[in-house]
Amino acid sequence: MSGDAEALAAFAYELGLLKRIRRSGWWHAGVRDPESVAEHTMRVAQLAALIAAEEGADPARASFLALWHDTQETRTGDLPHTAAAYLTKPDPRRITADQTASLPERSRELIRAAVAEYESRQTHEARCAKDADRLEMLLQAVEYRDAGVRRVDGWIESAHGGLTTETARRMADAALTVSPLSWRDR
Amino acid sequence: MSGDAEALAAFAYELGLLKRIRRSGWWHAGVRDPESVAEHTMRVAQLAALIAAEEGADPARASFLALWHDTQETRTGDLPHTAAAYLTKPDPRRITADQTASLPERSRELIRAAVAEYESRQTHEARCAKDADRLEMLLQAVEYRDAGVRRVDGWIESAHGGLTTETARRMADAALTVSPLSWRDR
Amino acid sequence: MSGDAEALAAFAYELGLLKRIRRSGWWHAGVRDPESVAEHTMRVAQLAALIAAEEGADPARASFLALWHDTQETRTGDLPHTAAAYLTKPDPRRITADQTASLPERSRELIRAAVAEYESRQTHEARCAKDADRLEMLLQAVEYRDAGVRRVDGWIESAHGGLTTETARRMADAALTVSPLSWRDR
Amino acid sequence: MSGDAEALAAFAYELGLLKRIRRSGWWHAGVRDPESVAEHTMRVAQLAALIAAEEGADPARASFLALWHDTQETRTGDLPHTAAAYLTKPDPRRITADQTASLPERSRELIRAAVAEYESRQTHEARCAKDADRLEMLLQAVEYRDAGVRRVDGWIESAHGGLTTETARRMADAALTVSPLSWRDR
Amino acid sequence: MSGDAEALAAFAYELGLLKRIRRSGWWHAGVRDPESVAEHTMRVAQLAALIAAEEGADPARASFLALWHDTQETRTGDLPHTAAAYLTKPDPRRITADQTASLPERSRELIRAAVAEYESRQTHEARCAKDADRLEMLLQAVEYRDAGVRRVDGWIESAHGGLTTETARRMADAALTVSPLSWRDR
Amino acid sequence: MSGDAEALAAFAYELGLLKRIRRSGWWHAGVRDPESVAEHTMRVAQLAALIAAEEGADPARASFLALWHDTQETRTGDLPHTAAAYLTKPDPRRITADQTASLPERSRELIRAAVAEYESRQTHEARCAKDADRLEMLLQAVEYRDAGVRRVDGWIESAHGGLTTETARRMADAALTVSPLSWRDR
Repeated sequence: MSGDAEALAAFAYELGLLKRIRRSGWWHAGVRDPESVAEHTMRVAQLAALIAAEEGADPARASFLALWHDTQETRTGDLPHTAAAYLTKPDPRRITADQTASLPERSRELIRAAVAEYESRQTHEARCAKDADRLEMLLQAVEYRDAGVRRVDGWIESAHGGLTTETARRMADAALTVSPLSWRDR
Repeated sequence: MSGDAEALAAFAYELGLLKRIRRSGWWHAGVRDPESVAEHTMRVAQLAALIAAEEGADPARASFLALWHDTQETRTGDLPHTAAAYLTKPDPRRITADQTASLPERSRELIRAAVAEYESRQTHEARCAKDADRLEMLLQAVEYRDAGVRRVDGWIESAHGGLTTETARRMADAALTVSPLSWRDR
Repeated sequence: MSGDAEALAAFAYELGLLKRIRRSGWWHAGVRDPESVAEHTMRVAQLAALIAAEEGADPARASFLALWHDTQETRTGDLPHTAAAYLTKPDPRRITADQTASLPERSRELIRAAVAEYESRQTHEARCAKDADRLEMLLQAVEYRDAGVRRVDGWIESAHGGLTTETARRMADAALTVSPLSWRDR
Repeated sequence: MSGDAEALAAFAYELGLLKRIRRSGWWHAGVRDPESVAEHTMRVAQLAALIAAEEGADPARASFLALWHDTQETRTGDLPHTAAAYLTKPDPRRITADQTASLPERSRELIRAAVAEYESRQTHEARCAKDADRLEMLLQAVEYRDAGVRRVDGWIESAHGGLTTETARRMADAALTVSPLSWRDR
Repeated sequence: MSGDAEALAAFAYELGLLKRIRRSGWWHAGVRDPESVAEHTMRVAQLAALIAAEEGADPARASFLALWHDTQETRTGDLPHTAAAYLTKPDPRRITADQTASLPERSRELIRAAVAEYESRQTHEARCAKDADRLEMLLQAVEYRDAGVRRVDGWIESAHGGLTTETARRMADAALTVSPLSWRDR
Repeated sequence: MSGDAEALAAFAYELGLLKRIRRSGWWHAGVRDPESVAEHTMRVAQLAALIAAEEGADPARASFLALWHDTQETRTGDLPHTAAAYLTKPDPRRITADQTASLPERSRELIRAAVAEYESRQTHEARCAKDADRLEMLLQAVEYRDAGVRRVDGWIESAHGGLTTETARRMADAALTVSPLSWRDR
């Protein structure tokens, strides 16, 4: 298994890069020191579970799809929306195929299947995970607004507009009225 | 569901705090600006899946347990090891019970069950998730060493010593020899 | 004195950790990159002198008590208020006893006496130092509000409500009306 | 006292600037994100007490002098050593006189006397405080070296060479051999 | 040329310090983590070209003057406005003379001439570059205000008041009404 | 000119984004908080002048080309080298055309001509500017190495290997032997 272990370790180091890559859209919004892709990803995976639980989907599966949804950014960076006019975003499945090519079979197929399911948007869990991605951005936008950032409306609207599940929409509506500190007051 | 949605949103904001809380042990090691709990958690959940896949456990379940393993730190902060001599660390299940008390039943039971399973260390998946927690710290220690931090040996040794699965041990050994940049050279 | 010098140096390195530990309450308020315990401590010690001078207490003594009031956090971190429901905060005197156990006698007794006096709140100087701790938080809350942070009211109110000296109360009232930039306009 | 309270509050805000001003010398050494003047000041004041205690001087007085030794930097910034060839460093007493001009008499005289005593280097406490300033820089240099910064030798040598008390010299020697983490191993 | 190459490399490292030195005025305004001198300088040089183009001056020359206008701060730091009451700001030409003393003649004369022209304010290009310096501060003030910083009015007014070209004044007026995100909406 | 001024101001805000975008390659090298594109650009423009001066090219023109060489990254981000396998890098001239479309004619043609000349690599000044881009990366790599980052060899080698002018090669060789602090010792 020594070659396998090395391939797994090398992949683990590649994933560590997500702890350093910043979410580039927030630079556009004027945030000098925004969150990392890893920080975003953790809450997306947690939200995916909550949405799936309320929607009657499989929470662990939805979380799992979310966990890998931005892992391709180790290779390309976090491409901002404005990049779409100038380049064709690569298929995430292609990057995942490269990232996992040396992994032992079980790990390789596990991750490829998760990315493929997420990208296809065909399963209930994939839709819950995608909604979690949008909802997380909306929550973060409100949190930045609470920290002083003025021009987050575009982010909130685009996140809200893309939601497809009833649970995510209700959570988004609630998030716009509830204080981010309300959990401390209970 | 309006009360439910508000409770879910409030919980989602509480989880957002993990994006700001820093992993306190690295301050001891001399790192001025260390990673957040959220950054750590994302890779723990990813590593848990890889370990579980190779160990024949359920990867999505192992990931899911990992995803909630530090969520109690919103209430207590990340207590450093040196704190153990001065206070009794609270039972994570008790904090999770409070955090989820207002959530709708499915979400509430989902998270409580995950935390309980992780803390009990009785299932194969819980042990994979716990090993992922340790392995992530080891990888981060190597990454900080590569960025110049000299005194990480204690962190590497304590992480390595606590591993219980064969896969995690082999990944840890490989991580100590493989370059963190080896994925770029393939 | 070689053992003494080593013990003093080791203690000095431990105190250096306060330059890295962040004040955890501000993470709750939504500040991503808050001040360190050391930064807080410097101004607490300065404010303690001003309060003591106006109150007719010993300014140097009040400053000195303030200087050591959070030094136990090297061992436990800065426990947020929400932690109180889940753990018993350790007695600072006990941690100080451990921190100073190897120091030469004069230094050891000096610091232990300062922490004991501060914690007992029995002397005028201890009360001035404690008010300085609260007033510093209020000033910082206003400064964060001036930098955009919206939800600092809870911090301002709790700081203000705990003040016990007339001078600190008047300074707090003035701080809520005076511009943080007024010193530049004189 | 309302005008007095406002003057004290305005001065307190001016002192808060020390929490943001970075120690400029470390930029020269290659540190991108160095400590603030406030972080430095806290440990200088603590070290001054330890040195004074061992030297038989008044620890609280030595700490107090240290607490104000860089407060003039709110007006001028932290002038790096290389500036000396191009400008005449202003007399700190003159800046302190301006900073305290509107304060009530007791606070005003208190701070002016502290700065004057520190600058004169005539008392044992002033020399302990000055040695603490140098020793703190030496400790920080070692801590940066432990975090990877290579070119700190000049800072260590210049700090060591300027020490005038036996205690500070012994602490400096010990600091060069003791691990910054030794306090955790006891 | 070996001595020349070494002198050029040493100068290049000195210029690198501008990537670390922060613009000190923003600390006064309450910004904890402000831009570097290098970040400011890049946009000053770009703005100088735009202003010069519209004013009928030589854009490349105006840019070039701007590129060196703060390079003396490697030696003195970025002296805040409040320093003016306490010290005489050194003549930039004198510092530049020292910085370039070992450079080969063409590089040396090139930079000295640029600094001398900028400081004399006699040419159209020098006035465009100076206006660019002010306009950049105004734009940054608006950007900080958009990120939550409240007390930037003094910076905006002082920048606006000093403008001497019609183009810079019109750009400043437009910058106060145009959204910093308007380029994304086109 | 009101529409022109607004277009110029909008463009100036877009350029401000370069002060926030980080150079993504350094995240790969393990740097958590790397320099911005603006910081890089300033020194590239300065180095371009030095190289051109020694090479007998036009220094102001070389600087000017350098000043705009990465300005397209406001739209696409700083694409890391690993992205090349997955997407076609857009032609910078196309992005510049869009960025400048609303500008008044003189500014528009000025910038388009600079980007076109830089990208064509046909002029001596364009080659000096491109070498400056590479040399700046090499200098920064050495600076990060001096701050502790271990794995910068790949960056140094790739930068060095691409240099085309004699001056840049000699400066690169000198930079590998000269201390980044040598300018302070003169």
